[in-house]
Amino acid sequence: MSRVRTPQVEKLPSGVPGLDIVTDGGVPRARTTLIAGTAGSGKTILAAQFLVEGVRQFDQHGVFITFEESAEDIRRNVASLDWDVAAFEAAGAWMFVDASPEPGEPVIETGGYDLGALIVRIEMAVKAVGATRVVLDSLGAIFNQFENVSIIRNELFRLTVALKQMGVTALMTAERDDEYGPIARHGVEEFVTDNVIVLRNVLEGEKRRRTAEVLKFRGTTHQKGEYPFTVMEGQGIVVIPLSAIKLRQRSSNVR
Amino acid sequence: MSRVRTPQVEKLPSGVPGLDIVTDGGVPRARTTLIAGTAGSGKTILAAQFLVEGVRQFDQHGVFITFEESAEDIRRNVASLDWDVAAFEAAGAWMFVDASPEPGEPVIETGGYDLGALIVRIEMAVKAVGATRVVLDSLGAIFNQFENVSIIRNELFRLTVALKQMGVTALMTAERDDEYGPIARHGVEEFVTDNVIVLRNVLEGEKRRRTAEVLKFRGTTHQKGEYPFTVMEGQGIVVIPLSAIKLRQRSSNVR
Amino acid sequence: MSRVRTPQVEKLPSGVPGLDIVTDGGVPRARTTLIAGTAGSGKTILAAQFLVEGVRQFDQHGVFITFEESAEDIRRNVASLDWDVAAFEAAGAWMFVDASPEPGEPVIETGGYDLGALIVRIEMAVKAVGATRVVLDSLGAIFNQFENVSIIRNELFRLTVALKQMGVTALMTAERDDEYGPIARHGVEEFVTDNVIVLRNVLEGEKRRRTAEVLKFRGTTHQKGEYPFTVMEGQGIVVIPLSAIKLRQRSSNVR
Amino acid sequence: MSRVRTPQVEKLPSGVPGLDIVTDGGVPRARTTLIAGTAGSGKTILAAQFLVEGVRQFDQHGVFITFEESAEDIRRNVASLDWDVAAFEAAGAWMFVDASPEPGEPVIETGGYDLGALIVRIEMAVKAVGATRVVLDSLGAIFNQFENVSIIRNELFRLTVALKQMGVTALMTAERDDEYGPIARHGVEEFVTDNVIVLRNVLEGEKRRRTAEVLKFRGTTHQKGEYPFTVMEGQGIVVIPLSAIKLRQRSSNVR
Amino acid sequence: MSRVRTPQVEKLPSGVPGLDIVTDGGVPRARTTLIAGTAGSGKTILAAQFLVEGVRQFDQHGVFITFEESAEDIRRNVASLDWDVAAFEAAGAWMFVDASPEPGEPVIETGGYDLGALIVRIEMAVKAVGATRVVLDSLGAIFNQFENVSIIRNELFRLTVALKQMGVTALMTAERDDEYGPIARHGVEEFVTDNVIVLRNVLEGEKRRRTAEVLKFRGTTHQKGEYPFTVMEGQGIVVIPLSAIKLRQRSSNVR
Amino acid sequence: MSRVRTPQVEKLPSGVPGLDIVTDGGVPRARTTLIAGTAGSGKTILAAQFLVEGVRQFDQHGVFITFEESAEDIRRNVASLDWDVAAFEAAGAWMFVDASPEPGEPVIETGGYDLGALIVRIEMAVKAVGATRVVLDSLGAIFNQFENVSIIRNELFRLTVALKQMGVTALMTAERDDEYGPIARHGVEEFVTDNVIVLRNVLEGEKRRRTAEVLKFRGTTHQKGEYPFTVMEGQGIVVIPLSAIKLRQRSSNVR
Ligand SMILES: Nc1ncnc2c1ncn2[C@@H]1O[C@H](COP(=O)(O)OP(=O)(O)OP(=O)(O)O)[C@@H](O)[C@H]1O
Ligand SMILES: Nc1ncnc2c1ncn2[C@@H]1O[C@H](COP(=O)(O)OP(=O)(O)OP(=O)(O)O)[C@@H](O)[C@H]1O
Ligand SMILES: Nc1ncnc2c1ncn2[C@@H]1O[C@H](COP(=O)(O)OP(=O)(O)OP(=O)(O)O)[C@@H](O)[C@H]1O
Ligand SMILES: Nc1ncnc2c1ncn2[C@@H]1O[C@H](COP(=O)(O)OP(=O)(O)OP(=O)(O)O)[C@@H](O)[C@H]1O
Ligand SMILES: Nc1ncnc2c1ncn2[C@@H]1O[C@H](COP(=O)(O)OP(=O)(O)OP(=O)(O)O)[C@@H](O)[C@H]1O
Ligand SMILES: Nc1ncnc2c1ncn2[C@@H]1O[C@H](COP(=O)(O)OP(=O)(O)OP(=O)(O)O)[C@@H](O)[C@H]1O
Ligand SMILES: [Mg+2]
Ligand SMILES: [Mg+2]
Ligand SMILES: [Mg+2]
Ligand SMILES: [Mg+2]
Ligand SMILES: [Mg+2]
Ligand SMILES: [Mg+2]
Repeated sequence: MSRVRTPQVEKLPSGVPGLDIVTDGGVPRARTTLIAGTAGSGKTILAAQFLVEGVRQFDQHGVFITFEESAEDIRRNVASLDWDVAAFEAAGAWMFVDASPEPGEPVIETGGYDLGALIVRIEMAVKAVGATRVVLDSLGAIFNQFENVSIIRNELFRLTVALKQMGVTALMTAERDDEYGPIARHGVEEFVTDNVIVLRNVLEGEKRRRTAEVLKFRGTTHQKGEYPFTVMEGQGIVVIPLSAIKLRQRSSNVR
Repeated sequence: MSRVRTPQVEKLPSGVPGLDIVTDGGVPRARTTLIAGTAGSGKTILAAQFLVEGVRQFDQHGVFITFEESAEDIRRNVASLDWDVAAFEAAGAWMFVDASPEPGEPVIETGGYDLGALIVRIEMAVKAVGATRVVLDSLGAIFNQFENVSIIRNELFRLTVALKQMGVTALMTAERDDEYGPIARHGVEEFVTDNVIVLRNVLEGEKRRRTAEVLKFRGTTHQKGEYPFTVMEGQGIVVIPLSAIKLRQRSSNVR
Repeated sequence: MSRVRTPQVEKLPSGVPGLDIVTDGGVPRARTTLIAGTAGSGKTILAAQFLVEGVRQFDQHGVFITFEESAEDIRRNVASLDWDVAAFEAAGAWMFVDASPEPGEPVIETGGYDLGALIVRIEMAVKAVGATRVVLDSLGAIFNQFENVSIIRNELFRLTVALKQMGVTALMTAERDDEYGPIARHGVEEFVTDNVIVLRNVLEGEKRRRTAEVLKFRGTTHQKGEYPFTVMEGQGIVVIPLSAIKLRQRSSNVR
Repeated sequence: MSRVRTPQVEKLPSGVPGLDIVTDGGVPRARTTLIAGTAGSGKTILAAQFLVEGVRQFDQHGVFITFEESAEDIRRNVASLDWDVAAFEAAGAWMFVDASPEPGEPVIETGGYDLGALIVRIEMAVKAVGATRVVLDSLGAIFNQFENVSIIRNELFRLTVALKQMGVTALMTAERDDEYGPIARHGVEEFVTDNVIVLRNVLEGEKRRRTAEVLKFRGTTHQKGEYPFTVMEGQGIVVIPLSAIKLRQRSSNVR
Repeated sequence: MSRVRTPQVEKLPSGVPGLDIVTDGGVPRARTTLIAGTAGSGKTILAAQFLVEGVRQFDQHGVFITFEESAEDIRRNVASLDWDVAAFEAAGAWMFVDASPEPGEPVIETGGYDLGALIVRIEMAVKAVGATRVVLDSLGAIFNQFENVSIIRNELFRLTVALKQMGVTALMTAERDDEYGPIARHGVEEFVTDNVIVLRNVLEGEKRRRTAEVLKFRGTTHQKGEYPFTVMEGQGIVVIPLSAIKLRQRSSNVR
Repeated sequence: MSRVRTPQVEKLPSGVPGLDIVTDGGVPRARTTLIAGTAGSGKTILAAQFLVEGVRQFDQHGVFITFEESAEDIRRNVASLDWDVAAFEAAGAWMFVDASPEPGEPVIETGGYDLGALIVRIEMAVKAVGATRVVLDSLGAIFNQFENVSIIRNELFRLTVALKQMGVTALMTAERDDEYGPIARHGVEEFVTDNVIVLRNVLEGEKRRRTAEVLKFRGTTHQKGEYPFTVMEGQGIVVIPLSAIKLRQRSSNVR
């Protein structure tokens, strides 16, 4: 209860083209932002690009926690975007925490997931590379095994508190089943986390259209509504900071 | 069974710009009003602003019970609205009751939530600062762990009766999953509480539009239907007391 | 098996303005009518007004059974409608049966609800004031604790049979979750009771519109479809006995 | 395996005005026809009228099995239609089998319903009055207590086989929750019975419109689609044997 | 692994008017085709007609397995279509396998259905009359008692394999709840069987319209989309092999 | 952590007419692609054709794992497309792994599916014919027996990891219940696999229209939206690499 004025929520520029305009300056610093989207909506690309641009533009190091795709898969998947993750790793600016099971050993037998051990591993990796940014991709793999929605809520809460204590700025990806249904699979993820960005990949007529929307940023401002984005080879996600409505007519030229 | 005429339901002016017009004078005094809304719909801001304006305009003290966000998070989140909660606390006009678990300790192991203990803590805080206003944000965190809807109904009823006995005017926030689906998550919250205000954050085309609606005020009047509001930096929620329909054409200029 | 002609179903004029036109003369006498509606739709006001007009216009006494709101709350809530319930009580024309739990004592521990004891208490109150009219508000509080829909059906049936044997004309309120979904929460209430009136509070555009509809009256006639009503200060519910369709154009002037 | 030609499915004229045109001659003789409808759709009136017209027009006696409404209630409910059931009973042309529980005794304690005993009681009543027609109103009360849909299917099948063996022509009423959803509550009733008639009470705009439709008659013909009907005081159900579509324009004059 | 060219999927002309055009020559020979439809959609008539036309036009004998309707009921139901099943039986060209329970004995007590015994009974009947065609009507009666969808899938698979080994061409009927919802009740029937034909009985406006559609024929061609059909007295099902769309205008003359 | 540049995701030309245009060069090499579709949508044909074109055009050998249809059934089903699978088998270019149960023996008794044994059998077959391509058709048969969605996710993950380690390019088919509902039955399949292609068979008016859509290809590009395809006798699937929207007018001439 000090008389010192409480600091406001600050933003960390993501470096993703267009995103920092739509978010009014970046993602909330030292907090966790949930990235929710359907299969193939671009969650992993956005998460990886957040780390890539951190290293490239701001010399901020990153930790990438994977739960299903192997580190090797991630490296390869983003290679087409001209991101040389292996080089970053070699330079000590990037570290993978591979929380996915060993291929061959059945995951199911390991019983309940040990979240405490994961938090320790993240903390060690953060210290090892002096990380500013952390990415967890994706929650689905660990939360599907809890049947009780109350456990999911508590575990998720515990995870975000731990990340806040480490002082890192984090992105966590979560799976959605429907483009305009519940925000995330278990219906509680969006209430527990401070910030939520939704990625959509909508079938309009027989065409697909991608959009990003800041659903909430606790304690700070952001642009409202959906903004179109595109995934460009050799570049990654580019958000177009013009209201999607205005873009509608012209958008047929954007791939 | 006295011959004295029964007093009518009185209103406590909230001080939130526009809201006291839409509510025909404020929220019902010495009763609890449920604020239901989806993630990011503005529940926490409205709740905090209710206390802030109480202190600022009417010198009424307030108690803020948090269940997931820490007191520090709340302080920081509202700092962008130029509300210096720490100063109020220092002045003895505001007290947090932090009912959220200690970071690090797993919430899940503590078993069933002890509502009796919570009521005692609220009562002590109310006495400590001489509070007129109380805010509970949010119910989701405690009620998700009960599986039986009948228990939720009874516990919620018990809580509102206890608050009524303390003589405070309270706001309680509740989570919704869909903008036009059930009022609150468990389908009973809105029947147990005397008063319900719904906050919406509707995707219209690709744009978001915020509205507030008094769904019911037992025993007293209110304006009907949805009224648009906006969250303004350095000010908080401003409800526009004009029918949303009439505003539709002009509303593109309102952020 | 007498040769005496079976008497027809008679009606008891409710005294609620407009309602007796829509019901072709009132609610069925010596039977129970279910009033189903969403939160804030006006169930409690209609129920109370049924007793109020009974005393005022026909000198028929009434018993009001509450399950969650205290008698004091009801008295206060209807005070704005200029109904002085305490005066009626003092005159021996009105009695509350407060079936709600004592504030402070946890409802949940009392186990299964004792319906037999409730029936005895109702019977005693009916005799005490010589009641013609009985109101039960609301069923939700007692039936939420039964998981089995078959038990609800049987208990509800038992309750209506008991009321029929007392010879009183009763209104019972039931909670609905959706304006145009199932009639009542458990999907059986409307089959067990002889008569059903539905109160609606529909969001049309961003405006609310209230309507009443007689869904069924076993063994007698009634007007069909929805009729608009309004709650007027110092007066209560006023049903407008003109088809809602015809009123649509003019209804913008009606509050 | 005789060489005698198998007799076709015959029809029993119901005597209900208009219905015998829509059914191409009546309901299938010596079989059971399911009457499915929502609350207040007219199931009980149609069932009773089937017995009444049997006595009046064809001197065929009837048995009416009730499961929830008492015999006295039924007598009274149809009195407004000028049907003097008590007189029929006195003349030995009508018998009630009251399968509803004694008022006062809790239904729920009697455990699983004893269908075998019911079948015996029906058989005795059929013999006692020499009944040609049997009515069971309504199935909901007994089938709601079975949780397993397979038990419902089997019990219902057993009941229809027993009725077929008695040689009577029967109507059984079943409850529906939605006008255009599943035919009957448990989703199997319509497959087990040979014949199905659906009664609807549709809200069109804010008006109600009643229709009857023969959904299936195994082994024989019938008119297809919905036919409007009305309940006329002193007369009962009158089906208008003109396609509902053609009637639409003119139907505003029909109550 | 022979060098002989694998024979293609052959078709067995059904003999049902129009159907062999829509199916490009008939139903797949020596395989099972699922006939899925709502109550009264014509499943039993199509199944019986498949056997009738087999005897009449191609001198192929048939076995009809019933699960709920008795053989006598089937005989009578199709009598109005001028099919003298008893005569076919006397001539040794048709045999019923009555897998329905004895009337009077409660079905439910017989425990789990003995599928192995059923397969043996079918095999014996097929040999007894030298059957080419087999019909099973309907699956609902036996599969409703399994709660586990995986058991249903396996049992159904086992049944189709057994029929394939007997070398017969079979039709099996399955129940649907909605005209345009899931193909069959348990959501697996259509994946296990090689071929699926859907019968619909759609309410269009207030009129019913019947259509047949080949949903899939593994390994062979068929016409696509819905084709209207009608049930004609003294004749049975007649499929109109013209696209339903083209027929729409003219179809008002077809009953 | 080598300095060697991470290789990008490569594509394996499928050889299916049109598909390699829509996929920007084929399916991802050495990975698994999920083919999701409703009953009869063409999953098995696409899977078989992937192997057939591999042998014919690129001399790449294939392994086909079946779970319900027997090898003989598959051979016969594709014979109408002029694919002589038996000849390929004789030439050592194709091998079936028949993971379906022996006809006659009840599948259900074998308890939980032994995925480890299956992986070994696939590996042996891959070595035996030197396979480049592997097909698994269909997942439904094995995953329906797990009740827990978390087990399905883990087992599926384990399977795809094992296939990746074998170095083969695989297609796996999965069942869907609705054309525009969840991607696959259990709502997790599409998140676990790297790549997803959806086959649709949409009822438009009363006509069927087939389309293919690449929903996601992790780490590489593809065309977006739905592309029409047709199954041509003596040829198989032909994808029309023109946007379905553009084709709409002309498509009435395409069968
Ligand atoms: N080099 C590229 N150029 C263009 N688009 C690409 C490129 N690489 C990937 N994409 C697109 O991005 C999609 C994959 O995005 P991403 O893997 O981030 O999705 P995701 O939301 O993480 O999906 P999942 O839930 O399956 O993990 C691909 O399906 C493809 O459409
Ligand atoms: N300073 C600000 N200026 C403008 N808008 C703001 C400001 N601070 C917050 N907001 C808006 O308010 C939203 C947060 O509102 P709030 O935290 O009250 O929502 P909530 O309903 O409590 O959500 P939750 O269910 O997640 O707790 C933010 O997402 C943002 O859109
Ligand atoms: N004096 C008044 N003047 C005008 N309207 C009033 C007045 N008093 C109450 N109302 C209206 O009536 C509503 C309350 O109606 P009531 O309490 O009967 O609803 P209910 O259906 O019983 O709700 P619940 O399910 O919460 O018990 C209030 O929300 C308000 O809109
Ligand atoms: N004398 C009458 N004149 C006109 N209409 C009447 C008359 N009597 C009853 N009705 C109408 O018939 C309806 C009752 O029909 P009925 O009791 O047959 O319905 P039901 O389908 O059996 O309902 P439930 O499911 O509640 O048993 C009443 O709601 C009323 O609308
Ligand atoms: N002789 C006939 N002439 C015209 N239509 C008839 C004739 N016999 C039956 N029908 C029609 O066929 C329908 C019965 O078809 P069928 O018994 O084959 O349906 P189903 O799909 O087997 O139904 P269920 O699921 O109840 O067994 C009847 O409802 C009737 O509409
Ligand atoms: N020779 C052919 N010529 C034209 N169309 C054919 C031919 N053979 C099969 N078809 C079409 O392909 C469909 C079968 O496709 P396929 O067996 O691949 O479907 P599937 O998605 O595997 O279905 P299931 O889920 O039942 O296994 C048939 O229903 C038919 O419409
Ligand atoms: Mg991903
Ligand atoms: Mg909040
Ligand atoms: Mg009320
Ligand atoms: Mg009835
Ligand atoms: Mg049938
Ligand atoms: Mg297949």
